[in-house]
Amino acid sequence: MSSFIFDENTLRSFTESVFLSIGCSQSHAELAADVLLASDLRGIDSHGVARLSGYVRLWEKERINASPNIRVVHETASTATVDGDRGLGLVVAPFAMQIAMEKAEKYGSGWVSVRNSNHFGIAGYHALQAVAKDMIGFAMTNASPLVAPTFTTERLLGTNPMCYAFPAGNFPPVVVDMATSAAANGKLEIAQRSGKPIPEGWVQSNKGDATTDAHALKAGGSLLTLGSDREHGSHKGFGLSATVDILSAVLSGANYGPWAPPFVAFLDPLPNLPGEGIGHFVGAMRVDGFRPVEEFKQHMDNWIKRFKAAKPITEEQPVVIPGEPELEAEKERKIKGIPLVEPVVEDLNELADRLGIAGLPV
Amino acid sequence: MSSFIFDENTLRSFTESVFLSIGCSQSHAELAADVLLASDLRGIDSHGVARLSGYVRLWEKERINASPNIRVVHETASTATVDGDRGLGLVVAPFAMQIAMEKAEKYGSGWVSVRNSNHFGIAGYHALQAVAKDMIGFAMTNASPLVAPTFTTERLLGTNPMCYAFPAGNFPPVVVDMATSAAANGKLEIAQRSGKPIPEGWVQSNKGDATTDAHALKAGGSLLTLGSDREHGSHKGFGLSATVDILSAVLSGANYGPWAPPFVAFLDPLPNLPGEGIGHFVGAMRVDGFRPVEEFKQHMDNWIKRFKAAKPITEEQPVVIPGEPELEAEKERKIKGIPLVEPVVEDLNELADRLGIAGLPV
Repeated sequence: MSSFIFDENTLRSFTESVFLSIGCSQSHAELAADVLLASDLRGIDSHGVARLSGYVRLWEKERINASPNIRVVHETASTATVDGDRGLGLVVAPFAMQIAMEKAEKYGSGWVSVRNSNHFGIAGYHALQAVAKDMIGFAMTNASPLVAPTFTTERLLGTNPMCYAFPAGNFPPVVVDMATSAAANGKLEIAQRSGKPIPEGWVQSNKGDATTDAHALKAGGSLLTLGSDREHGSHKGFGLSATVDILSAVLSGANYGPWAPPFVAFLDPLPNLPGEGIGHFVGAMRVDGFRPVEEFKQHMDNWIKRFKAAKPITEEQPVVIPGEPELEAEKERKIKGIPLVEPVVEDLNELADRLGIAGLPV
Repeated sequence: MSSFIFDENTLRSFTESVFLSIGCSQSHAELAADVLLASDLRGIDSHGVARLSGYVRLWEKERINASPNIRVVHETASTATVDGDRGLGLVVAPFAMQIAMEKAEKYGSGWVSVRNSNHFGIAGYHALQAVAKDMIGFAMTNASPLVAPTFTTERLLGTNPMCYAFPAGNFPPVVVDMATSAAANGKLEIAQRSGKPIPEGWVQSNKGDATTDAHALKAGGSLLTLGSDREHGSHKGFGLSATVDILSAVLSGANYGPWAPPFVAFLDPLPNLPGEGIGHFVGAMRVDGFRPVEEFKQHMDNWIKRFKAAKPITEEQPVVIPGEPELEAEKERKIKGIPLVEPVVEDLNELADRLGIAGLPV
């Protein structure tokens, strides 16, 4: 598939102008664009500007509020609940992370559960805010249901990602940013386009059978949890996904399990929802709430060095430190630009037409 | 293999007398026995009294201190670091959890990283202390290295378990208590004894090849992380295990990665250790730091009810709520007693002889 290369600033201004044109404030438009660009820069193409028209379609259906009154509705010294007022998760989650970091500054740690929000982009963006302040960052979110727990054919959970981010010294931060499903939906879409079979263990059929058919999800099947099957620990993936769902949504008052509203505008939310919007959970802990920052960073460097030096199974593939590939992509794309495949560029320029703003230069 | 059934109280007094005889205080002996018995009652036979002689052998090597001065060495309002003074993890972790819960009581949440400790039993025991106080409980620990990260043949991580425990209303708590490896070591031992092959994806050979040989670990192979191989997300299991290692050990000043001291007394710790003992990380968050407890519990019940009602793939196997099997085992074993296989009983009675205390009645 042919693709076009855009420099970061071109994509950033385009994205800001899309958000401005649906009524976001200047600061919200800049922030939302920053979250999406971070994803494109870090090589996570599925969560960047490719999603822009999806956000706009949800706004057109009045499921996203472009000028939300995001507020703390409940709190203690180190905990809070935030109501996102149906705002873009791209601005709601940074608001919540800011609260978490302020609490951590004062009380050592801060934990914020968020309801009434929408898709928040990549978890890593939010967790990394804390790392910049010598804190350990946490971010997770529930998501529209595509994943079946062990032993059922029903899609009751989202790909529910969780992220833990740790500052290091001379090395870049360690960033564990992962869906709790065996495979990300983006990988499946690549296989669908290429017409190739997928590995057994990513998806099950609508009867719960193992399958290598990349189209089984669209035919009513479901994604599998990390671990893939019971023998290989799919119940652990289910437990992790459940943890994300409960911390993000049951704790905040958002919709959980199968009630998490779909991210696609053509599917309506279920009737009789038990909560509001989708939920996130973010947190920050000051490193020096436990030990001096320099000591911690020195040992993080030692940890990273030891794992990087591990004897590889094959010479050409050393151990990968979590967060390293995304940082490599970011370095490269900051210089060489961000590639977008043709259908994404077409979709964005149709969107620009519809909103009456300048399209991307092609 | 033949086994003997003991009632809970018999095993409890025996276990207490073992800990008393190595010099533990009455309260420490009772607490340590309570942690081990909880494991046997909950059906996790690998982490209960079967480990008693292992603890004693570590004490004989002066790697466990029976009368530790466990203390807080660093703290903020909601965070602390505890030095376990080489004590039994079975008493060090409850001390840390107590601090976490006191901080949560005052400031909404409490987080404690622990160094200079030893094996702490099952993570679930510690996390459940918080649930009893209408808090969400967290517990994790690093462990002696048996697990290879993705792309290496080296054992750099332990089975590093993590536990999240959530109170519910009419239903029992949801308890996600899991090793971050694909399979627990206990399952492997069962396969070794039965002479049966193991599923591919649990263990790799010393060359990093896939294997179904249950003895491959003893022959220099390694356990695999949750996800089993790169294609099925083993890098996620690595990320989770790394998270446990960093929060438990890099943050507290314990030994991390390959330096985590072996749990078996016949293997010495590596030279030039970067920290002290092994590490844990425990935490507690007050539910009402986020929303009223009754509201939360009502939605937890609704969550559990919905997942239990999920359409099963086969009629005979419904969805299993995390924590349910352990609770069922506990109910049964409280009434019918706790089965111990013959080699464990023999080992415990040899131990009793050696310590000059009464053995188990067989």
